[in-house]
Amino acid sequence: MSLQAMDSSHVALVSLKLEVGLFDTYRCDRTINLGLSLANMSKALKCANNDDTCMLKYEENEGDSIVFTFADPKRDKTQDVTVKMMDIDSEHLGIPDQDYAVVCEMPAAEFQKTCKDLSTFSDSLNITATKAGIVFTGKGDIGSSVVTYSPSSSADDENEAVTLEVKEPVNVNFSIKYMNQFTKATALSDRVRLSLCNDVPVVVEYPIEENGFLRFYLAPKIDDDDNME
Amino acid sequence: MSLQAMDSSHVALVSLKLEVGLFDTYRCDRTINLGLSLANMSKALKCANNDDTCMLKYEENEGDSIVFTFADPKRDKTQDVTVKMMDIDSEHLGIPDQDYAVVCEMPAAEFQKTCKDLSTFSDSLNITATKAGIVFTGKGDIGSSVVTYSPSSSADDENEAVTLEVKEPVNVNFSIKYMNQFTKATALSDRVRLSLCNDVPVVVEYPIEENGFLRFYLAPKIDDDDNME
Amino acid sequence: MSLQAMDSSHVALVSLKLEVGLFDTYRCDRTINLGLSLANMSKALKCANNDDTCMLKYEENEGDSIVFTFADPKRDKTQDVTVKMMDIDSEHLGIPDQDYAVVCEMPAAEFQKTCKDLSTFSDSLNITATKAGIVFTGKGDIGSSVVTYSPSSSADDENEAVTLEVKEPVNVNFSIKYMNQFTKATALSDRVRLSLCNDVPVVVEYPIEENGFLRFYLAPKIDDDDNME
Repeated sequence: MSLQAMDSSHVALVSLKLEVGLFDTYRCDRTINLGLSLANMSKALKCANNDDTCMLKYEENEGDSIVFTFADPKRDKTQDVTVKMMDIDSEHLGIPDQDYAVVCEMPAAEFQKTCKDLSTFSDSLNITATKAGIVFTGKGDIGSSVVTYSPSSSADDENEAVTLEVKEPVNVNFSIKYMNQFTKATALSDRVRLSLCNDVPVVVEYPIEENGFLRFYLAPKIDDDDNME
Repeated sequence: MSLQAMDSSHVALVSLKLEVGLFDTYRCDRTINLGLSLANMSKALKCANNDDTCMLKYEENEGDSIVFTFADPKRDKTQDVTVKMMDIDSEHLGIPDQDYAVVCEMPAAEFQKTCKDLSTFSDSLNITATKAGIVFTGKGDIGSSVVTYSPSSSADDENEAVTLEVKEPVNVNFSIKYMNQFTKATALSDRVRLSLCNDVPVVVEYPIEENGFLRFYLAPKIDDDDNME
Repeated sequence: MSLQAMDSSHVALVSLKLEVGLFDTYRCDRTINLGLSLANMSKALKCANNDDTCMLKYEENEGDSIVFTFADPKRDKTQDVTVKMMDIDSEHLGIPDQDYAVVCEMPAAEFQKTCKDLSTFSDSLNITATKAGIVFTGKGDIGSSVVTYSPSSSADDENEAVTLEVKEPVNVNFSIKYMNQFTKATALSDRVRLSLCNDVPVVVEYPIEENGFLRFYLAPKIDDDDNME
């Protein structure tokens, strides 16, 4: 099951993929595009309790709704939440694979904190990566903040390490407001992977178990040269 | 000690009863009605610490105040909070006992969650109870939510069970906004008891130890037939 | 290192002293006054993580900024936060030592709770101290709250005791709004010390390790006689 959504200004794209293997039961007779308001879907999902099972159902002949069934078998309780669908004019986008100049993995909470810190000083986030390390910079009127990670050579705890693969150095600027939105996904995953190329959207990826992922794509800011180091 | 309050639209009534046995010391020379603003009483009670003892005192000859004395004997500390009373024109209401067609007991947190979930879809809560189970329904423009409890035949944990006594089926509608207010009492008690009859106010009761209770009475909505199942 | 700040109405003063011994490394070539906006300094300090080391640096020849360097050596990470300074017209104030008529020490959390409770009833805090105990009073239109501490003769836990040294009785009034601001420092220290004299600013002191402190000075309210007991 794949999910895509784009922000209204078409600067950011989110892509969620849940592989068949993540589901206990999965039946899909033919590939189909379903449009749902994210706000309404969120209301439906909030009805779930932590230990509930969840079933999504869409019947082609039964009109314009998706049914989320949450069941708590311990208590002989079921909750059927029916959400009306919406027409969406866009098709599912095929996103081409890309070779990135820099791939950086780090603890998701660490990336979240860095974006939050820098956003107190600046609207723009500059990321500069070389083989020596990756540097996040936010500069503004009241001051600046520069966060430098040297790749951890011998991290004791693998989940805490910052790893960096650099084919070519990059130096790119992004809107930090979007990054702060993306990092709300931090609870999903211990780790985040940033894939970077000059002049190309960054990919901020949170892996979900073995084969799933939540990916955010964000176009770089190009008119902001004086914010670079 | 009994406490009653009614909302300004006279749709809902709250009734608190604390039996003499709940108090360490209790002296009441004659039955008396005392009027207090709930907001001011709440300010007084917020002054208490968890391990404090609390004493309420009203002296007929000392004018128009009630004194709450909180004492922390460990620290030789006392706190006297004096709250001015207010004139209330209404007398304490005698509420007649009633035979209800349906009595349902369930975990208080479960009822709270169900009301909250349904309120995201609807202003009205429909409750339908038969011998087969109790169904809570909220229907609105963006979709609907239907929560079904089958009576737990063999609940492992008595506190988690949903029990249901049905003399006659009921089908009633209530304002869900009031229900959400009532369920703020969830912290008081593990369990809640709903007593239902067609065309009669529901009783939402939270027991307090052996003999005390906090009861909410809510008149049904009657103009809302299309919200029923 | 000493820090001073005064509120815009010149009623309250805060004074922070961090002795050289609190620092791992400390170098100061000559005494210098540095002006920083508290809001900006706060933004810089929020960038720190709990286990980070922190270095403050000011170079006289490098212009008008202070650099806070937070380092997380476990992760080969450093964060340089540069904050622009501001011109402050006032010099560091020398505050004369004073003999206080009453010195009271109590748990910081206890003082915080008392100020918060009283502020629900009154804008003014009356403090009356005699050899028999210390009494905090807040009186307002809806009622009043009176908190009385008898000095703990035999406190089991030293950190929980309320101790009181009284040379002369005092009876003073303060703005409770400022007190509530001061008690935000409660997280810094288990204990707070109040030093009181009639007609003289109170000192609310939170000790920091052996030799450091955070002190708040607050001038008494003088036009508020009817608020006294």
